[in-house]
Amino acid sequence: MKASEIRELLKLLDQPDILSFAGGIPDPTLFPKAEFAEAMAEAMSGPGAGQALQYSVSEGYGPLRQWLSRHMGTLGVPCAAENIVITSGSQQALDYLGKLFITPGDTALVGWPTYLGALGAFNACEPRYARLDPWGNADAATLQAEAEAAGGRVKMAYVSPDFANPTGETLDAAGRMRLLDMAESLGIAVIEDGAYQALRYDGAQVPPMLATDVARCGGIDAARVIYCGSFSKTLAPGLRVGWVCAAKPVIERLVLLKQAADLHSPTLNQIAVDHVARRLFDAHVAGLRTVYGARRDRMLVALAREMPDGVTWTKPEGGMFVWLNLPDGVDAAALLAESLKSERVAFVPGSAFFADGSGRNTLRLSFSCATEAQIDEGMARLARLLRGA
Amino acid sequence: MKASEIRELLKLLDQPDILSFAGGIPDPTLFPKAEFAEAMAEAMSGPGAGQALQYSVSEGYGPLRQWLSRHMGTLGVPCAAENIVITSGSQQALDYLGKLFITPGDTALVGWPTYLGALGAFNACEPRYARLDPWGNADAATLQAEAEAAGGRVKMAYVSPDFANPTGETLDAAGRMRLLDMAESLGIAVIEDGAYQALRYDGAQVPPMLATDVARCGGIDAARVIYCGSFSKTLAPGLRVGWVCAAKPVIERLVLLKQAADLHSPTLNQIAVDHVARRLFDAHVAGLRTVYGARRDRMLVALAREMPDGVTWTKPEGGMFVWLNLPDGVDAAALLAESLKSERVAFVPGSAFFADGSGRNTLRLSFSCATEAQIDEGMARLARLLRGA
Repeated sequence: MKASEIRELLKLLDQPDILSFAGGIPDPTLFPKAEFAEAMAEAMSGPGAGQALQYSVSEGYGPLRQWLSRHMGTLGVPCAAENIVITSGSQQALDYLGKLFITPGDTALVGWPTYLGALGAFNACEPRYARLDPWGNADAATLQAEAEAAGGRVKMAYVSPDFANPTGETLDAAGRMRLLDMAESLGIAVIEDGAYQALRYDGAQVPPMLATDVARCGGIDAARVIYCGSFSKTLAPGLRVGWVCAAKPVIERLVLLKQAADLHSPTLNQIAVDHVARRLFDAHVAGLRTVYGARRDRMLVALAREMPDGVTWTKPEGGMFVWLNLPDGVDAAALLAESLKSERVAFVPGSAFFADGSGRNTLRLSFSCATEAQIDEGMARLARLLRGA
Repeated sequence: MKASEIRELLKLLDQPDILSFAGGIPDPTLFPKAEFAEAMAEAMSGPGAGQALQYSVSEGYGPLRQWLSRHMGTLGVPCAAENIVITSGSQQALDYLGKLFITPGDTALVGWPTYLGALGAFNACEPRYARLDPWGNADAATLQAEAEAAGGRVKMAYVSPDFANPTGETLDAAGRMRLLDMAESLGIAVIEDGAYQALRYDGAQVPPMLATDVARCGGIDAARVIYCGSFSKTLAPGLRVGWVCAAKPVIERLVLLKQAADLHSPTLNQIAVDHVARRLFDAHVAGLRTVYGARRDRMLVALAREMPDGVTWTKPEGGMFVWLNLPDGVDAAALLAESLKSERVAFVPGSAFFADGSGRNTLRLSFSCATEAQIDEGMARLARLLRGA
């Protein structure tokens, strides 16, 4: 399992003298701690405390589903609470969606690279992966013919259109439309991972694919796009609260899967997230954008200053990641092993994000937890390492 | 899905004038609310607050795994923290264990009846079910031959040996030994569901099957029994904290499954449960035993007073349930529908707990959330209903 190998690697990198850009986690100093403490205290006092600690329904806490349906409305997706199921982070949504759509041998379309947690979730269903590239040459008929030759059918496409993990890149409106057209030709679901959607630092917001789909097909209950959202990058990941927004028949099937798999997400956590989201979601996210945006700026400036010729990188408009392409022949995994001995700067080798294990000359940097001084020093170290490679 | 049908039914029964013995949930007035409020407040104050809201490791919060390894030691299972993985309730453990052991067409041995949430979890893997009966006539060779004739192998046995949901019955030490022998002959895993283990009201404790297995095989890492525990019935279910105690190779595979499925259980919840368990687990459970034990007594007395001839029931030594056998030809589902119109007393028809849908003349009563007056009135109503049936 690649995800686990990376996890094991990241444990080794957790040493104090290592400058790490390997994690993809939010900065814990930015969590709304006081507000969560207040929300927990409120939920745990008075007559509601019993409810907060009791079993609850598999579809999720009603007021939070209501809030999320309005939140999705602000993103251009008119929907009802019945179009929302609460999940234990969006990772759980990916796990369930894999099970819902894939039987062994079916084809899943994913980016090259893509989020390795999605590969980890889908792998349990033993799919064949094919490259999803809205601008590539492969048309729907070719993709389907290849899937059938491999003994299955194309069943779904997975895409993170905003500031994707690992590249930080955004799929523009035309690309989203083209992907929707392809999905329609194939008759498949599109899983839209919106984990980083709220963290835009510049440029104009592009509507979620689900919004475009709903506008085209006339209503969410006819939509083929399934939107996975998460509070992990906006409020706090440790509470494990995410959601899926989709057509009611999809939500109903996910609720049955969740009921069999873990009954429901923790009650108190949903109550607390509902409380905090209602009071400060927009204001808090605006604050995160300022801080993370400055770190992204600093990293892009440092990369431009430090990197040797032959190294290129993405210029993300949001999220937590910058993606580097190294000169051909440089192996990022070997580079990391070397770094542990010399420069002591950490990153994630890119090949783990490729379904076919390619991309050996790529790597992922995260700027979300680094100070500006750490970014400057880290990029200088990385550049020295690359000049020696 | 039978579990979901029952859930939908239970929603209908949630009307104020219905006397319900249908739920199988703990009494929320007995949750240690003040202690959880204190634990949350402590976790959310000071420098640890960031950690409580941050991502954490898939295997679970270290101090809680430590506490649980000692707790399992007190049950006769010497083990280390590495023999524990934290799950989101024991329902999640059942889901993962189904995936770990069963491929479609394999045989799972389950009680007739058994916990319907286990059937719900395993059903995703499309097993064949065969009847597990340590005192039955079927020997291991016969069970295996039948499994092979059905196109698979016997892969596991699932058993809840203490005060099982739905019957309340306990498997005695000799029965446990016999089941272990059978599992050894078959070379299969035994999944021991200990959800109600701590709630014994009288009689002598029988060691968990895992304890017996460890004593026989020489150490936990050679054990074939996999113990699923839960804080849902002892502290609070809404936080979704359970655990598996098993051989390290099993734990390692479960950690990988969990990582791909939901990354980890919520950090704060584990910290809070650790805090509360350390401070008051034994004392709190002793209090629960007194209250639930009195309710069980009252129900058994009321049943003896009220029930017409031809109705028999279990005499559980613990847990939350009494199981009724009605006269042949009485259909408990039809009886419930009738009850909604006349006596307004609720229970769970027993057939949902049978893998083959049999047991139509059985029903489950829970005494965990009822007052003594409600128990008296409810059993009188149920007896009138049965006399009319």
